[in-house]
Amino acid sequence: MRDFLPAEKARRERVLAVIRRTFASYGFDEIETPVMEDSDRLHAGLGGDNEKLAFGVLKRGLTADDLHDATEPLQLADLGLRYDLTVPLARFYATHRAELPTVFRAIQIGSVWRAERPQKGRYRQFVQCDIDVLGEAGPLAEIELLTATAATLDALGLRDCTIRVNDRRLLTSALSILGFPKNEHDAALITLDKLDKLGHGGVIAELRERAFPAEPVDALEAFFARPATAPLPFGEAAIRAALPEGVDSAAIAELAAIGAAVSASVTFDPWLVRGMGYYTGTIFEIAHPSVGYSLGGGGRYDGMIGRFLGMDVPAAGSSLGFERLVELVEFTEAEDEAVALIYDRDVAPQVLVSLQSELVDAGRRVRLVARPRNLNPVLEQLRASGFTEFAFVNAGTTAQTLEFKQLT
Amino acid sequence: MRDFLPAEKARRERVLAVIRRTFASYGFDEIETPVMEDSDRLHAGLGGDNEKLAFGVLKRGLTADDLHDATEPLQLADLGLRYDLTVPLARFYATHRAELPTVFRAIQIGSVWRAERPQKGRYRQFVQCDIDVLGEAGPLAEIELLTATAATLDALGLRDCTIRVNDRRLLTSALSILGFPKNEHDAALITLDKLDKLGHGGVIAELRERAFPAEPVDALEAFFARPATAPLPFGEAAIRAALPEGVDSAAIAELAAIGAAVSASVTFDPWLVRGMGYYTGTIFEIAHPSVGYSLGGGGRYDGMIGRFLGMDVPAAGSSLGFERLVELVEFTEAEDEAVALIYDRDVAPQVLVSLQSELVDAGRRVRLVARPRNLNPVLEQLRASGFTEFAFVNAGTTAQTLEFKQLT
Repeated sequence: MRDFLPAEKARRERVLAVIRRTFASYGFDEIETPVMEDSDRLHAGLGGDNEKLAFGVLKRGLTADDLHDATEPLQLADLGLRYDLTVPLARFYATHRAELPTVFRAIQIGSVWRAERPQKGRYRQFVQCDIDVLGEAGPLAEIELLTATAATLDALGLRDCTIRVNDRRLLTSALSILGFPKNEHDAALITLDKLDKLGHGGVIAELRERAFPAEPVDALEAFFARPATAPLPFGEAAIRAALPEGVDSAAIAELAAIGAAVSASVTFDPWLVRGMGYYTGTIFEIAHPSVGYSLGGGGRYDGMIGRFLGMDVPAAGSSLGFERLVELVEFTEAEDEAVALIYDRDVAPQVLVSLQSELVDAGRRVRLVARPRNLNPVLEQLRASGFTEFAFVNAGTTAQTLEFKQLT
Repeated sequence: MRDFLPAEKARRERVLAVIRRTFASYGFDEIETPVMEDSDRLHAGLGGDNEKLAFGVLKRGLTADDLHDATEPLQLADLGLRYDLTVPLARFYATHRAELPTVFRAIQIGSVWRAERPQKGRYRQFVQCDIDVLGEAGPLAEIELLTATAATLDALGLRDCTIRVNDRRLLTSALSILGFPKNEHDAALITLDKLDKLGHGGVIAELRERAFPAEPVDALEAFFARPATAPLPFGEAAIRAALPEGVDSAAIAELAAIGAAVSASVTFDPWLVRGMGYYTGTIFEIAHPSVGYSLGGGGRYDGMIGRFLGMDVPAAGSSLGFERLVELVEFTEAEDEAVALIYDRDVAPQVLVSLQSELVDAGRRVRLVARPRNLNPVLEQLRASGFTEFAFVNAGTTAQTLEFKQLT
């Protein structure tokens, strides 16, 4: 868990404002849920491995006897901190469905908590920015998610991002055609997920090492070795060309519809795995050339949102990893014109605040700074904090006689 | 703890944006700290009664033996949720002082948690908006806080607010002059705090009932009964006229300097008590004619911020009670131009998203809505969500042929 000092906090808020505004402009509605959920709900099996990382919150008013009688920690916790924004969304939807549009496009921006072992780049409190489309079974859900996600990356100046898209049904269909038994699909996908790192040869070697049956591995090797075709734009032809013959045609048509409607930064990746068990169709991940990890991703996860309702609700979502994203964003212009009034100690406070108010009313950000013996470190600090100009104020200064100097 | 649905969440974010922007324009810097703090720190005596309301977070990896051996709940919690933003600020300042300006003006906007018994209008998770000036011993600190607070209320359209100001030192000085023994000041202030409700007679009656010595109560009664003088603007004359002769002149001069520098919505109230033990000088509270409770307040609390540093740090702060404030704010204009595209099911998704993107690029917020059998409830919901126009999209529609109708 981290503190954020002013410069970093300002960056974060600015990035959040862009994300919030762009998501909203594509018709999504922001909601908010409490950071604590009932412990039972957090441990209901929707959170996968993250459930184990949930922080538990002690029941209030526990007696010495309660402690003595408890045999495991969860008996003492009725609440916990959310480890993702999906469990809260499922609970929210179950509670408020009657008040929401038939197709509900949700924005959730908030912190989540996981009791990870401290390590570089992993935080115990971090921000997620999720959008989800609930109640839309067709590919328009994915198209809206991908469009809003690509527009947000664009608005943040991250123009080198690509969003790689695939469909879980194509993956499993391809594995079946190659001869992998159904019960070994998940295991084979763990190795295929490393294709970027290992390359074709590495994947085949690892599959052999892990003692998969020889025939499907041979078939995969032969498939990998087929002559390369010219790259095609994301559409039905590209999908068919990248997969063994005979894969699930309905899934191909849906993915092709998505490909036809999204921007050029969204590409097809036949071996994208995105290792979450709960995805049921489209999956996608955001890549940026300067970093080896994904900046976010998502997909279709029908069947999960409706769990607390006891019914099926088609659902697809996209999540931006805010902590990773925020480090890549560079703002070229200052957000506002910030000036410092450096005053002598004998200037009356009412003079200072009336000068300040006048400048604020004219649209500036204004800080009052007592004139220090040594000016340079103070000017340096102002510059680092994004201030662009300063003026001295002495007992005779008026708004008309203020002289601004550049802080360069 | 509450969920926020889209309309309410949008209002809240809009109010927060105004608060954040106004505070920043007066030179304050936003920071952020984790929502969890070490349990020891939350229970170090800085939080007063709120310490008892802290939610404790279970240690990770507790064994059955740990539970069995524990004799009180806090032994099982190493972290807790913050119950205010002042303890985190003191910890933040102790950690980062070297990186901060000599006079540090902090903004903190965030949720705090208290395990209150559920009752109307009390929440277990609620947002506070605090500004604090650390390192400035003179009245400019209070002047900046009051100016930024008044400007924020103004920017929110809450023009009927008044901020009532007093100084703890004047209160205790007046009580001493009237003959109340020092050790009974706090007790007497509990009754004086009810002056608004009880009136002069009621306060005197309660003081007699609570068996305070007769002489000072008689002296207070006589003081209350003195002839009324014409109201004076907030300054030295007004302060002297409202208090028994002989009160602390240094405190009067400081409060008069504050009065001279602040706007007309900031007034002097000689019997404002603000019942927090930690205030050491100026105190203030925000009142609005339509509600009986205060919308926030603050004051000088030298001695508290430096606790974790083991040194004195002059400090003053102002806190807005966001949950109370947000209910009073009325926005007269819509924030953005939001339109709905109501599409027939046979329109290709790529047509829809390209129409949408074009309108978004032109500065609009755009939602795609499948044409329902019954249009009216959908139009009603769009209107309630702040949408102002809609257009139908069929297979032949282009950007040029879109016809917008008002949602009125």
